[in-house]
Amino acid sequence: MTHNIAILGASGYTGAELVRLIATHPSLKITALSGNSKAGMTMSQVYPHLRHLDLPVLTKIEDVAFANIDLVFCALPHATSQAVISTLPPHVKIVDLSADFRLRDTAAYRKWYGQDHSAPDLQKEAVYGLTEFYRDDIRNARLVAGTGCNAAAGQFALRPLIAAGVIDLDRIVIDLKAAVSGAGRALKENLLHAELSENLHGYAVGGTHRHLGEFDQEFSQIAGRDVRVQFTPHLIPANRGILATVYVDGDADIIHQTFVDAYAAEPFVIVLPKGEVPAIKHVRASNFCHIGVVADRIDGRAIVIVTLDNLTKGSSGQALQNANLMLGLEETAGLMMAPVYP
Amino acid sequence: MTHNIAILGASGYTGAELVRLIATHPSLKITALSGNSKAGMTMSQVYPHLRHLDLPVLTKIEDVAFANIDLVFCALPHATSQAVISTLPPHVKIVDLSADFRLRDTAAYRKWYGQDHSAPDLQKEAVYGLTEFYRDDIRNARLVAGTGCNAAAGQFALRPLIAAGVIDLDRIVIDLKAAVSGAGRALKENLLHAELSENLHGYAVGGTHRHLGEFDQEFSQIAGRDVRVQFTPHLIPANRGILATVYVDGDADIIHQTFVDAYAAEPFVIVLPKGEVPAIKHVRASNFCHIGVVADRIDGRAIVIVTLDNLTKGSSGQALQNANLMLGLEETAGLMMAPVYP
Amino acid sequence: MTHNIAILGASGYTGAELVRLIATHPSLKITALSGNSKAGMTMSQVYPHLRHLDLPVLTKIEDVAFANIDLVFCALPHATSQAVISTLPPHVKIVDLSADFRLRDTAAYRKWYGQDHSAPDLQKEAVYGLTEFYRDDIRNARLVAGTGCNAAAGQFALRPLIAAGVIDLDRIVIDLKAAVSGAGRALKENLLHAELSENLHGYAVGGTHRHLGEFDQEFSQIAGRDVRVQFTPHLIPANRGILATVYVDGDADIIHQTFVDAYAAEPFVIVLPKGEVPAIKHVRASNFCHIGVVADRIDGRAIVIVTLDNLTKGSSGQALQNANLMLGLEETAGLMMAPVYP
Amino acid sequence: MTHNIAILGASGYTGAELVRLIATHPSLKITALSGNSKAGMTMSQVYPHLRHLDLPVLTKIEDVAFANIDLVFCALPHATSQAVISTLPPHVKIVDLSADFRLRDTAAYRKWYGQDHSAPDLQKEAVYGLTEFYRDDIRNARLVAGTGCNAAAGQFALRPLIAAGVIDLDRIVIDLKAAVSGAGRALKENLLHAELSENLHGYAVGGTHRHLGEFDQEFSQIAGRDVRVQFTPHLIPANRGILATVYVDGDADIIHQTFVDAYAAEPFVIVLPKGEVPAIKHVRASNFCHIGVVADRIDGRAIVIVTLDNLTKGSSGQALQNANLMLGLEETAGLMMAPVYP
Repeated sequence: MTHNIAILGASGYTGAELVRLIATHPSLKITALSGNSKAGMTMSQVYPHLRHLDLPVLTKIEDVAFANIDLVFCALPHATSQAVISTLPPHVKIVDLSADFRLRDTAAYRKWYGQDHSAPDLQKEAVYGLTEFYRDDIRNARLVAGTGCNAAAGQFALRPLIAAGVIDLDRIVIDLKAAVSGAGRALKENLLHAELSENLHGYAVGGTHRHLGEFDQEFSQIAGRDVRVQFTPHLIPANRGILATVYVDGDADIIHQTFVDAYAAEPFVIVLPKGEVPAIKHVRASNFCHIGVVADRIDGRAIVIVTLDNLTKGSSGQALQNANLMLGLEETAGLMMAPVYP
Repeated sequence: MTHNIAILGASGYTGAELVRLIATHPSLKITALSGNSKAGMTMSQVYPHLRHLDLPVLTKIEDVAFANIDLVFCALPHATSQAVISTLPPHVKIVDLSADFRLRDTAAYRKWYGQDHSAPDLQKEAVYGLTEFYRDDIRNARLVAGTGCNAAAGQFALRPLIAAGVIDLDRIVIDLKAAVSGAGRALKENLLHAELSENLHGYAVGGTHRHLGEFDQEFSQIAGRDVRVQFTPHLIPANRGILATVYVDGDADIIHQTFVDAYAAEPFVIVLPKGEVPAIKHVRASNFCHIGVVADRIDGRAIVIVTLDNLTKGSSGQALQNANLMLGLEETAGLMMAPVYP
Repeated sequence: MTHNIAILGASGYTGAELVRLIATHPSLKITALSGNSKAGMTMSQVYPHLRHLDLPVLTKIEDVAFANIDLVFCALPHATSQAVISTLPPHVKIVDLSADFRLRDTAAYRKWYGQDHSAPDLQKEAVYGLTEFYRDDIRNARLVAGTGCNAAAGQFALRPLIAAGVIDLDRIVIDLKAAVSGAGRALKENLLHAELSENLHGYAVGGTHRHLGEFDQEFSQIAGRDVRVQFTPHLIPANRGILATVYVDGDADIIHQTFVDAYAAEPFVIVLPKGEVPAIKHVRASNFCHIGVVADRIDGRAIVIVTLDNLTKGSSGQALQNANLMLGLEETAGLMMAPVYP
Repeated sequence: MTHNIAILGASGYTGAELVRLIATHPSLKITALSGNSKAGMTMSQVYPHLRHLDLPVLTKIEDVAFANIDLVFCALPHATSQAVISTLPPHVKIVDLSADFRLRDTAAYRKWYGQDHSAPDLQKEAVYGLTEFYRDDIRNARLVAGTGCNAAAGQFALRPLIAAGVIDLDRIVIDLKAAVSGAGRALKENLLHAELSENLHGYAVGGTHRHLGEFDQEFSQIAGRDVRVQFTPHLIPANRGILATVYVDGDADIIHQTFVDAYAAEPFVIVLPKGEVPAIKHVRASNFCHIGVVADRIDGRAIVIVTLDNLTKGSSGQALQNANLMLGLEETAGLMMAPVYP
């Protein structure tokens, strides 16, 4: 049985990544693509790497025939997303890749996004899309909110440790390195090749990055108390991938065993042998997440390093993993491709 | 039905690419991997990006149990390949990725490779592996010789034109740009990141590159006369991909139509609308080949631009395409993944 | 004695490169910087790599006090440049880095730039800025027109050969590879890191690049007849540098000797031993130009490869070299820094 | 007055960088270059970017005429350096770029380098080469030990803070990102372009990097007690530059003011306005070091970010700065070139 899929906002990188993944999915069919500023264009005009595919022409959202759509991937900009999703017919399942439904608390949303949420009921209904930790809820959800790509990386490193109570909750530093596609296809000066190649710098330094809203919400809920981490993202001269170096106070052996136990049954999360460290290129263009643990020379401290591809496991791959669950399909369908190396 | 596959020389980039492709192939199973200098290691030690796969440990070639192997991919160094292939049992089908069986003529082999061929009978038996042009022979072959990656790019640009007699055979210039993985994982100074990044230079300039042996053999055979092209490869600061800019004397409209006709039924070769040009990133990590044709401002001259991924369509993907044919499988099995972009 | 310098359009890459070069120049002092859209900002806000320098704040052009300026570098967009230069007081010497005064013929200007020139008298007065070939005229000029960066590379490869009559004027192909800074700091999709890194493609294929106007003008003048070359530029995943691979019909030995003779006294143009080829990184961030000559395997054909840094020798370094001459200074002042490698 | 300079180990990247810098130095002249494995070659064969310079041929060390040499830059591998320096005549001043004389304590040397020091007297005599903090000693030294490039970055971030007692000495994390030229021109698999481009990973994770020996020595001496920091270096896909993100417990305003005071008179160390962060490309190919301070959202914590070019300020530029002092020259001679951007 084939499910009909629409991708709203298909002209961005996460939209193109969804098309790439669905292209070889055994039971999904793309029947509508929207991209307001590119309406009327073919997908191969916007992304010539997809020219071998037979895809619908890009349309405006209002021209999508939702009646025959089973599931929508919503890859629209923040704020636009909530407006559009409010109008979708009730039979349509939705995986939202924007930030609009990640935070459950209206005050937290206002704090991090600087405006009131226009669909607070949907905000309450939405299930947080970190599949490995919300699997059952996702199976039954109508609306799933894809996580921030950085937020995903940090949570794979910290959720099991906080849940197990094996680290000091007041001494957590996430030093994160993120490739440029996480910023999308936007025309910004710092995203130019001439600016970024041979460069590297921090951004949103000091705790102002919006993904901290997700960390605060999730970690505090797991811990049953307020948890505030330090988080410094850096922009790196690469196109895909996130590597998070997480400094914690805790015993490396216990931490490693906690991961081994937590992720034993997970198809996409791989815990490396203790002492080994991952590299972003080892998961590139795949849905895998690699986790390494190393003891620091200072007793009682450990370094956890997590890597994933921001466009795949951090965004579109995660979205497809969730869609598979929502449609009653095999969770791994269309997602077992090996990383591309070199 | 599952076919058992061995990859000899699995520790190089083409070996790793074969594993990547076969990992999601519906009817092939890797039952042996050899890598002499890495014998005893797991594939994930050599290539951690493959650590999610359940693969056989690397062995020495002599420890491979060929009895239950249906097809061997031979990704060994030049010269080693012919020695090994001579010893393989007759029931085993072979796709060779080395240069050893590309040239049918013993004198030509000696000229370009500086030594006598040690298996001239096999050299005669081998079928040249450019699938689109040797499809029927490949279906019935026991030994198929994968083409040079640059040689593949040049031939996609020129074979139909030479066959149709629409260009001047004495005025052909192939200016080619090749990514670094074509040189393999060898430890050479000019392949270091610090040397190549932000760099670009020609090599084997003036007509000394060995892939010219393939051009001479194939083009002369098609034309029924000696054809000698000019060919200048350049090393570019990228990991995957080849782009060949081919200068010909001929009418651009006729040339474009010749391509449209020649490749109409091909699943992997895509002719762009006249006037559009391809980019290496539009085929990255895929088995597709894009071809563009532009008329020059000088009457009677045209530019043909071809791009493909040297590790996929130029090598391991081509090898798998051939293996599919040799095993009676769907030619495109395991090869329809979309390019990875960005 | 110190000369007072203004840079108009200082917020672009060529402007920043001029500041870099002048920063250690023994007898030039930057007394005004304009950048209309950034007027009011400091240069270190626009280019933090210059924050160690004590520079004037960016102003609007109309706020520059030209009375005390000896020489202006005009790094404004095409068309804007001619409008501004028309208004400059007569005592000011001008090196223009735009395309506005490169073509001497009003019809040629209209053909390549699609509009009439607004200052045809200045167009006639302007001296073409390829220092090595217009040195005496430049010394006495009030207005010098910097060449196109690609045009410079092609001319270093071809002017001496055309002048000496040692190549076939009807069979010249320039296949050029250009780094991205040549396109400036403009916000265009194809200049994004995510688009260009790991990519390479041709542009203005077929003879539509504006620098052909310069080739046509200069080569035809030298030859005393119409000369039309083929010219295909490619955008490469690097920030600085141009490498031109030039295919000619001629004897490689004679060609090499022609270069050795032509450039014997040149401080910045270096002819490599015959058979050696240059690399763009060997001249990066310097004012040097390297030229290599290789005989093709086909008798009577040769490949000439030229490399230079588009921002230095191809633009701002060339401009400073010309300014030195116009001000009666040592031609090489401030320009002898070695290339940056790796 | 011109001083005669020898560079031992000139075939490595730090050797080439010394040549680049000295090429435009007003009062130094390179009179000998050694490179044992490349003895007999010209420098332009080893580094074609230097082919415009008139340099001595590479020789073996034993063929260097030290009698007329005023100062030696010793860019030899670790351990080789101490053996060679022991044999140099007493009139020769020495700037050593290896790790051999960075640690004053013989036990510490053994611990970090796994062998006994062969010249413990010289080890005692050597002055640690972080110019800004050992300026007076360096002026009078015969032997100066260049610091580790990472060690330099970490110390610019922490020495003033430890000296002023404004941070918690037990909670210091240095997360460092280092470009690949820091690893030299060695033929190692992980330094290949195909491996590193589009990649990023940690190395020596957990406190095993040798530069920790320098941190321990220097920070403990300043504090008057044992100080142990956490230090995780990462290899980034870039050629030049180090960026260290340093997490400290302390007040950001006080920390920023401490830097402003400490570096007020320094020509090469620039403290950014509070809240701004540096980028590695803003100091590329220059001797500058940029420092930024940002308050974390958690009260009492701050992030200090430091960037410098590992080959210049982190190694050869620092060495030249020290040589200038040792020879009684202006400290900044030959070092005021602006960074290269883009």
